[in-house]
Amino acid sequence: MNIKRTEVGPIMSRIVEHGGVVYLCGLTADDRAADIKGQTKEILGKIEALLTRAGSGKSKLLTATIYLSDMSTKAAMNEVWQAWIDPANPPTRACVGTVLGTSDTLIEIVASAAK
Amino acid sequence: MNIKRTEVGPIMSRIVEHGGVVYLCGLTADDRAADIKGQTKEILGKIEALLTRAGSGKSKLLTATIYLSDMSTKAAMNEVWQAWIDPANPPTRACVGTVLGTSDTLIEIVASAAK
Amino acid sequence: MNIKRTEVGPIMSRIVEHGGVVYLCGLTADDRAADIKGQTKEILGKIEALLTRAGSGKSKLLTATIYLSDMSTKAAMNEVWQAWIDPANPPTRACVGTVLGTSDTLIEIVASAAK
Repeated sequence: MNIKRTEVGPIMSRIVEHGGVVYLCGLTADDRAADIKGQTKEILGKIEALLTRAGSGKSKLLTATIYLSDMSTKAAMNEVWQAWIDPANPPTRACVGTVLGTSDTLIEIVASAAK
Repeated sequence: MNIKRTEVGPIMSRIVEHGGVVYLCGLTADDRAADIKGQTKEILGKIEALLTRAGSGKSKLLTATIYLSDMSTKAAMNEVWQAWIDPANPPTRACVGTVLGTSDTLIEIVASAAK
Repeated sequence: MNIKRTEVGPIMSRIVEHGGVVYLCGLTADDRAADIKGQTKEILGKIEALLTRAGSGKSKLLTATIYLSDMSTKAAMNEVWQAWIDPANPPTRACVGTVLGTSDTLIEIVASAAK
């Protein structure tokens, strides 16, 4: 099976497609002055843009792993998440608390979708 | 390829099937008064039930990610895990320590299996 | 679809192949006296050996999840990572800070590749 890589950088590809699955890299917000809702919105916008670029979309999401720097922000993140996902087609999901790349990175999301 | 979603809730599906793979959401125990062995047993029972519902089973597990709130509980978790898995057909596995959804959530497992 | 398991141990398989995808278990270094660069190098060598054994290779990597015990080591890990990956074919990647299996385990990597 073919492998297609898009937005190939020095340490990773932002999109890898293989076998009908679109894998996205771990995404964080550029505006790290934003609060958890703002960072979540920015990341979900990035996911949507990358999936569209790969010929997929949020209604085809398969899985999502959400890493939060502070689990007390989960309820606020969930509000933004729930308003964004296609209610008929949510992915599987896990949400855990970890240390992230910088101290003002509040959330990172890894997602996969069907093509 | 078709996507099949089962137990679709407001923030996620508990089962998503695509391309011959069954993805399960992150699973935690309902009885959070239970110790690590009890919580692990309950989660493994949930995995078995969800896989059966999807026409799969524990002998078809592909991958498992185990999140523990306290890595010192790993040996006790492993005892329950080892007694449960099909010894001829264990999945790949990773086990790391993270903060979980509530302070009494001791373990969360994300698994995928072949259909 | 067929499932092929290799290096099957009591709690996990180190390689599981299914549907054209090679899943590897979470890999850590044996030499835990080594610093982050040494541990990263050892793990990347293990990934390469396991992928070769499965008839795959680092140019076919799909995804990688990197768990660090201390996120301040990320830049040093990245140097080793960047020197190792096929620059034309990097996988998607996420890197988060978690507690690992022993106090001297500095890094664990989970990877998947196309066959």
